[in-house]
Amino acid sequence: MTTTASARRTRRRVAVLGATGAVGQAFIRRLANHPWFELAEVAASERSAGRPYAEAARWIGTDRIPGDIAGRRVVACDPDAVTADVVFSALDASVAGDVEAAFARAGRTVLSNARNYRMDDDVPLVIPEVNAGHLALLETQRRKRGWPGAIVANANCSTIVAVLALAPLHERFGIERLFISTMQAVSGAGYPGVPSLDILGNVVPYISGEEEKIETESLKMLGRLDGDHIVPAAIGVTAHTNRVPVEHGHTICMSLGFGSRVSPDDVRRALEEWQGDERARGLPTAPAHPVEVTSEADRPQPRRDADRGNGMTVTVGRIRRDPVLDVKLVALGHNIVRGAAGASVLNAELMEHNGMLPG
Amino acid sequence: MTTTASARRTRRRVAVLGATGAVGQAFIRRLANHPWFELAEVAASERSAGRPYAEAARWIGTDRIPGDIAGRRVVACDPDAVTADVVFSALDASVAGDVEAAFARAGRTVLSNARNYRMDDDVPLVIPEVNAGHLALLETQRRKRGWPGAIVANANCSTIVAVLALAPLHERFGIERLFISTMQAVSGAGYPGVPSLDILGNVVPYISGEEEKIETESLKMLGRLDGDHIVPAAIGVTAHTNRVPVEHGHTICMSLGFGSRVSPDDVRRALEEWQGDERARGLPTAPAHPVEVTSEADRPQPRRDADRGNGMTVTVGRIRRDPVLDVKLVALGHNIVRGAAGASVLNAELMEHNGMLPG
Amino acid sequence: MTTTASARRTRRRVAVLGATGAVGQAFIRRLANHPWFELAEVAASERSAGRPYAEAARWIGTDRIPGDIAGRRVVACDPDAVTADVVFSALDASVAGDVEAAFARAGRTVLSNARNYRMDDDVPLVIPEVNAGHLALLETQRRKRGWPGAIVANANCSTIVAVLALAPLHERFGIERLFISTMQAVSGAGYPGVPSLDILGNVVPYISGEEEKIETESLKMLGRLDGDHIVPAAIGVTAHTNRVPVEHGHTICMSLGFGSRVSPDDVRRALEEWQGDERARGLPTAPAHPVEVTSEADRPQPRRDADRGNGMTVTVGRIRRDPVLDVKLVALGHNIVRGAAGASVLNAELMEHNGMLPG
Amino acid sequence: MTTTASARRTRRRVAVLGATGAVGQAFIRRLANHPWFELAEVAASERSAGRPYAEAARWIGTDRIPGDIAGRRVVACDPDAVTADVVFSALDASVAGDVEAAFARAGRTVLSNARNYRMDDDVPLVIPEVNAGHLALLETQRRKRGWPGAIVANANCSTIVAVLALAPLHERFGIERLFISTMQAVSGAGYPGVPSLDILGNVVPYISGEEEKIETESLKMLGRLDGDHIVPAAIGVTAHTNRVPVEHGHTICMSLGFGSRVSPDDVRRALEEWQGDERARGLPTAPAHPVEVTSEADRPQPRRDADRGNGMTVTVGRIRRDPVLDVKLVALGHNIVRGAAGASVLNAELMEHNGMLPG
Repeated sequence: MTTTASARRTRRRVAVLGATGAVGQAFIRRLANHPWFELAEVAASERSAGRPYAEAARWIGTDRIPGDIAGRRVVACDPDAVTADVVFSALDASVAGDVEAAFARAGRTVLSNARNYRMDDDVPLVIPEVNAGHLALLETQRRKRGWPGAIVANANCSTIVAVLALAPLHERFGIERLFISTMQAVSGAGYPGVPSLDILGNVVPYISGEEEKIETESLKMLGRLDGDHIVPAAIGVTAHTNRVPVEHGHTICMSLGFGSRVSPDDVRRALEEWQGDERARGLPTAPAHPVEVTSEADRPQPRRDADRGNGMTVTVGRIRRDPVLDVKLVALGHNIVRGAAGASVLNAELMEHNGMLPG
Repeated sequence: MTTTASARRTRRRVAVLGATGAVGQAFIRRLANHPWFELAEVAASERSAGRPYAEAARWIGTDRIPGDIAGRRVVACDPDAVTADVVFSALDASVAGDVEAAFARAGRTVLSNARNYRMDDDVPLVIPEVNAGHLALLETQRRKRGWPGAIVANANCSTIVAVLALAPLHERFGIERLFISTMQAVSGAGYPGVPSLDILGNVVPYISGEEEKIETESLKMLGRLDGDHIVPAAIGVTAHTNRVPVEHGHTICMSLGFGSRVSPDDVRRALEEWQGDERARGLPTAPAHPVEVTSEADRPQPRRDADRGNGMTVTVGRIRRDPVLDVKLVALGHNIVRGAAGASVLNAELMEHNGMLPG
Repeated sequence: MTTTASARRTRRRVAVLGATGAVGQAFIRRLANHPWFELAEVAASERSAGRPYAEAARWIGTDRIPGDIAGRRVVACDPDAVTADVVFSALDASVAGDVEAAFARAGRTVLSNARNYRMDDDVPLVIPEVNAGHLALLETQRRKRGWPGAIVANANCSTIVAVLALAPLHERFGIERLFISTMQAVSGAGYPGVPSLDILGNVVPYISGEEEKIETESLKMLGRLDGDHIVPAAIGVTAHTNRVPVEHGHTICMSLGFGSRVSPDDVRRALEEWQGDERARGLPTAPAHPVEVTSEADRPQPRRDADRGNGMTVTVGRIRRDPVLDVKLVALGHNIVRGAAGASVLNAELMEHNGMLPG
Repeated sequence: MTTTASARRTRRRVAVLGATGAVGQAFIRRLANHPWFELAEVAASERSAGRPYAEAARWIGTDRIPGDIAGRRVVACDPDAVTADVVFSALDASVAGDVEAAFARAGRTVLSNARNYRMDDDVPLVIPEVNAGHLALLETQRRKRGWPGAIVANANCSTIVAVLALAPLHERFGIERLFISTMQAVSGAGYPGVPSLDILGNVVPYISGEEEKIETESLKMLGRLDGDHIVPAAIGVTAHTNRVPVEHGHTICMSLGFGSRVSPDDVRRALEEWQGDERARGLPTAPAHPVEVTSEADRPQPRRDADRGNGMTVTVGRIRRDPVLDVKLVALGHNIVRGAAGASVLNAELMEHNGMLPG
């Protein structure tokens, strides 16, 4: 770590692509005072390019635009316009495919939130505490694609929250069957996102593509690296996804069946003892506890628990016997922080710490 | 039916116990202009007895107190104070046990919403379209308890909604495994019920006793009458129950495994063709369709679908293949109408129509 | 009335412009089974034209698209494509100016919800119960503009609700000063309208242009017809407008100062006795009581009172002494029904009944 | 300040009365790590006394019970059971009258949130930045009542927020007329407080006693100390108070009339320049800016601005010309922090700093 530590005396310049949207704003918050990264550029669509950030973006947080970003001029999402070697992508899937590839081709490392490359064989889909080792796929990626740069993805927001609760249990006991039902916050749909007329006092039991993401991305992240590809975890998983009138925080009910007899106490202990991959420990935005267990009968709750660990901790509660499988529980995490911008930033920290970022 | 038809020239006098609460108010709405029943008495706790109804109750609907009920004097929940032979009980479980028994002992027929007697071997737990035949248990009940009256129960609100969607499928295909996750409206907790500070912009993943009710009551209703008792359905069922900031309407996600191969199309057809027990057809408040199927991608939704069939229709949507079991779907119904007061009134209509009410 | 009555044996064909939006949908609901009008055509933007209505519109109600409208093909908002003589305009202000004029020029009578012509000297801005006589401006309009057709406007939603509560008091006592503060439902912003991230658990104390509309349109409607123009009411009025997380129903707090001493009891009596212009009585969708007074301490409330009179009644409550002016009170009405689509339809009924519609 | 500074080397022991309720919890949060005060005792009703705090209270925040309070045993609200010399009262008005007097009689200084003594001639009603000088009434209080202790009150939550926005303007320009309309968060009603069935998707235009409190308490605080009493400000004020589905933060629309011509720019400048009474500056929980002006068109908003200045800053926006009076604007503040617990703690800091606390 000595070399990277000295490299950090001057912070590494990074950029955010898609900086005006909801996730883009979350990136700005997390990078504003980052000890290792300096937010050097904010990039967005042609429509926004050239305008001061404060004009181009409708800032939707409870805070103010941090630092000097408000006056910063937005640049285009183009490797010619962006100079930073490391870019965080909050781009919409409709454009992320081309733009992220262009940046990788131009030698940049792309930390992507978009769904486009997540399930590609040679793209690591990473949660540092869970599967840091999957970053080894980057060699394959460079070889196969011939890119001097790289794309590293993080999963869909609800999947990340679920997988953080599942990883300790799959590592220790082996999950075989999994039923998931989510209640997801409106911020997961971006801004303007869900119209208030659709969700005030209502539930919408459908989120386009979300169930498929959970059912595939979770198996890749819980899978095993085998040379140049990931062998997905052999878990039968089904997901129901729902939108609820909550601002931030996805709540996830799960029933789990294991290969052997596992009790609620076993599960609780495994979650409490888990610390995650040691390569993730001590990173600047890594929480002290990636997973926390609550014993209060009616927790976790999004409004009360989403911010734990600065939004990076997943809270698990209601661990109890499942009458059909083995154990049921509820997991909750902040969809915009742990489930999106914070996930990418933590991935970048992991790469920086391990000398995997350029130059 | 000739005798009961003539009896109906003068409507049968009925009473509501626990008339001031949320479910009690729903009873008043449904009985206010009922063709067969005349709401003769409103009974409530000692604290309310003697006061005009409008003073004793905090009316929480969007309507006004119907008819002349506002000025009606509340009587005590006591068989000496109530004269009607048929009583609808919206009593809280903390008092329902004693009070309902006292009425049955006094020769009254009690249509109960309370949980106290639901799982007793000799108490029919009835949804007319699903298991009208279970009313035959009343003979056993009278014999065993020596009551001249009777107690007939309806299930917990979320269970009723789920069972209406399940019954057509269990009848036709045989369900073996069942995963349930609910998102329940605040009106299910009565009034004042859920504090706004707990539920505004939040989800509470816990409702006391609710999961156990779903896991047991559903099996009794889907079970088979065998002489003097019910053989519960042999379904492995697990439930997750959640409170969401919705006024009325419980939304229920379900994954179903059958004994044989069943496709989403089979399920859709079975639901569309199902008409329920013929003894329930044509009853005054029976909906034309106890179950309706929607093919819209994002329905059913509580605010938009809870009132279908005057609150008595359960809407089922998102019927699709389940990657672990066979089929998954979403059901939705009005918890206060189909799930509580409307359920009891329909049970009473079924009994009236079949000459099972006193006199 | 004999001629129009016979004309009604066959219902008059009408069209809705901007039929796919939130207000357009409200028009469809109100015209679906109208005794005098037959909804013959649904028109919308070029993007929608040619497609079946059910595909072009995202239906946002709790009901289903009425009658055969779902399959009806949408036509363009063009007098060449629309054949009906009477058109209801739910067009956005950005296009209403040109389109409505084109229809009037083509001999059609336009009942407009848009703001574009409301304050023009020769355009009647009408609430039938309040200022039916202002329709006389149509002569001036035809003379000045040379249109064979006509434009009749209704006011902004919050203004209509306020003016219905104010008219009885201004007629009887003369209002001199008026303070208004609104809490407006999200449906007033159309669909998709207000993003849920902006309004869940929040208040937005700003609605673009709304305060100016209230401060000017109310004076025109409470004004006096003087030959070819309206002399606006001489009331000093100030408005604060706010968006709140409510689905339907605008709640309006008002403090009123009169020219003479007026007590809360005077106000209550004036409101209770008021029946509005007799020309509006008995129209098909006119409510029995355009204004109702509630004496409950905490009413009116949007969720509980917006639907009174089928959405056409304004409820007034909390009539009490104002320590600075004379009296303060709260008014509430359904913004989409009385405040928009229902307002236009009632205007058309008034014109039909008085032989003011073409042919 | 030298003596008090040295006194602070060991923090002063304080107690909270009514510690289990919503405001009591807010006190605990604000006193948990206070530099000058040590939260030594938590007192509540007889029902709670003797139980560990975590059992007696239903903690409703997003955080956990701070420090070692969870295990602390609750004592009775009785001067014999509480030993601290300074007590913060979050008691309900139904008991605060007797209990607070008993503490004052027993020589304790009571910082009270309750309404009971607020309008008494000899009880200072204080916002440190606004009327620190009113604390001089304590001499009169001691003389008239013979109490060795004292009661110092803070105003009702909405009044405090309004007065912080008004004080700079009244000081500089002299307000003569004032129209106020509030939209108040549910946390203002305590816990369990407002039932969700009453407020989800709704507005309740009534809060018991609230309008009277605003209309009287504001004039006392903006009034002038004249020997042994306060001459209330000569402002004509009328208030409309409403409950809205917001968690924290009261939004207040105001129209202001001044004695002379005052423009929106004058108002903005006066607010921006105002620093408040110098005696309040630098107190531990005093915000850098008691009042902040926002120029964003649609701010302040409760969810986005209530937490400014750690909940102690009032945000004012939409400063514009009023067509009837002079200027209108919107003010917003955190009702539980600046409007309740934070207000009392700041009052205690002011007294400590000025040597007005016992011993």
